[in-house]
Amino acid sequence: MCARLSGSVLVTGSNRGIGLELVRQLCESPCPPTHIFAACRDPDGPNAKVLRDLALKHPQLVTTLCLDTTNQGTIAEAARLVGDQLKDGSLNLLINNAAINIPGSLADTGEKEMMEVFLTNTVGPMLVTKEFLPHLRTAASRPGAQSEMSCRRAAVVNVSTLFSSIQRCHETFLRAPMYPYRVSKAALNMLTRCLSEDLRADGILVMALHPGWVQTDMGGPQAPLSTEDSVKGMLNVISSLSDQHVGALLDWEGKSIPW
Amino acid sequence: MCARLSGSVLVTGSNRGIGLELVRQLCESPCPPTHIFAACRDPDGPNAKVLRDLALKHPQLVTTLCLDTTNQGTIAEAARLVGDQLKDGSLNLLINNAAINIPGSLADTGEKEMMEVFLTNTVGPMLVTKEFLPHLRTAASRPGAQSEMSCRRAAVVNVSTLFSSIQRCHETFLRAPMYPYRVSKAALNMLTRCLSEDLRADGILVMALHPGWVQTDMGGPQAPLSTEDSVKGMLNVISSLSDQHVGALLDWEGKSIPW
Ligand SMILES: NC(=O)c1ccc[n+]([C@@H]2O[C@H](COP(=O)([O-])OP(=O)(O)OC[C@H]3O[C@@H](n4cnc5c(N)ncnc54)[C@H](OP(=O)(O)O)[C@@H]3O)[C@@H](O)[C@H]2O)c1
Ligand SMILES: NC(=O)c1ccc[n+]([C@@H]2O[C@H](COP(=O)([O-])OP(=O)(O)OC[C@H]3O[C@@H](n4cnc5c(N)ncnc54)[C@H](OP(=O)(O)O)[C@@H]3O)[C@@H](O)[C@H]2O)c1
Repeated sequence: MCARLSGSVLVTGSNRGIGLELVRQLCESPCPPTHIFAACRDPDGPNAKVLRDLALKHPQLVTTLCLDTTNQGTIAEAARLVGDQLKDGSLNLLINNAAINIPGSLADTGEKEMMEVFLTNTVGPMLVTKEFLPHLRTAASRPGAQSEMSCRRAAVVNVSTLFSSIQRCHETFLRAPMYPYRVSKAALNMLTRCLSEDLRADGILVMALHPGWVQTDMGGPQAPLSTEDSVKGMLNVISSLSDQHVGALLDWEGKSIPW
Repeated sequence: MCARLSGSVLVTGSNRGIGLELVRQLCESPCPPTHIFAACRDPDGPNAKVLRDLALKHPQLVTTLCLDTTNQGTIAEAARLVGDQLKDGSLNLLINNAAINIPGSLADTGEKEMMEVFLTNTVGPMLVTKEFLPHLRTAASRPGAQSEMSCRRAAVVNVSTLFSSIQRCHETFLRAPMYPYRVSKAALNMLTRCLSEDLRADGILVMALHPGWVQTDMGGPQAPLSTEDSVKGMLNVISSLSDQHVGALLDWEGKSIPW
């Protein structure tokens, strides 16, 4: 099925895991986006080899960018480069995918862990969204843009998790405490909801998406979903977003998750 | 109506607003707690004058303590002092009340504001709870303790807000953006829920409580509720907590708020 992501896309944390697979499937789609910005912390380093090979294979389509979500300078520089490269300066889809997890019990968790994970997983997506907002606004308001919201007009997708659900915390907490991660992702959901209200008037759709439990460095080998199946589902959901999904938290199959 | 808070209580941010009124009503209750620890950043400073006068009036009942929720050293020292002062080392009720708000639009809000409010409003209650956990555990397990959970056995009440509700964000967001505050309090709700699962086996009840919109420095003069009415309601809710309220988010009238 064609993902119908006709505009330009930026993915953070795109050198491995779900982010890399997003870039791969977008590249290899029968109807790819017009441009893919594959952002990661160290695009020239050893952990971005597969991404670099992909970019070499699709030189017209993929640009790799240095972007550390905890470093405002790199975010601003990435936004500048994107603005230079895009003819009309319009970015249609921003996928805030980069995140970290520091698991552990209450005894293992202190200020340092809480602050570090919050900075990366919650403040990071906020800073990135703010910095790319001019490009998203340009996309949302360009002549001929649809009046309905969608990922083809302008959208921000924050990659969240089932573990962000306060309601469903009791189902999994004792098996997987992860205070900093759960707290940061519930915080990300609130950020998503606030941004969705704020940017609705600009025609920018903001929502949160749970990829499922996926075989990555973070998800571990025992996860039931391959990155391929997770990302196939995610792209289907993203491509079908419309006004009704403003501020929603959905999973990779399009099912709603309670806050 | 008697608040029936028979054991020892600690309140953070007790020098003004809701925290001060909590201490006042607990002191002046016909059946007061056995001891009240009134913690604040600067118990000897000009902003704690009313609290000091209250403590002077009830010298057997109230101890003021220095506790800055963003300063691990002061929290540890406060916990040591509480342990020394309590004959059996058991603290029955911890009320994490201290918080800050930095209102403003998305443009006004950056990393600094997000991190500062998260540190005070979310990480603070976590650090305080961790540090007082030995005293709460002693209370929960002391000979003769009830088997049901309650504020008379051992409880942690995190003061949250209606603005923490991700579900209800759209009702108020555009009038009162407050990104850092909303995000920190949604994060506090998740922390509450995690702690409630974690500490349930110890017999410690953890829940979150919305005081209403209250006339304080934070709430502003246009708020509909006096601190007196808000705190009367809060103490009624706290005194009636039981097993069924583990991990709940309630308002000052005992009504449940959706996440
Ligand atoms: N895997 C799962 O089961 C699962 C389940 C639910 C939600 N998720 C979410 O899905 C998203 C992707 O997770 P994943 O499983 O692909 O994780 P992963 O394999 O651990 O990859 C994480 C990616 O984020 C990047 N990253 C971390 N901190 C960064 C920073 N400060 N700046 C820029 N990039 C940074 C990493 O880059 P480096 O290589 O430089 O470290 C890496 O590219 C995350 O938001 C995660 O919370 C995953
Ligand atoms: N008022 C409302 O309408 C309303 C509505 C919903 C929820 N709430 C919640 O109710 C609680 C009390 O609010 P309030 O209205 O009484 O606010 P307030 O009048 O602004 O008082 C805040 C209190 O928190 C203390 N505090 C701030 N940062 C601290 C820190 N790092 N360490 C220790 N203490 C600190 C302040 O101490 P200093 O004097 O040293 O600054 C002060 O005692 C907060 O959790 C707030 O979020 C209030």
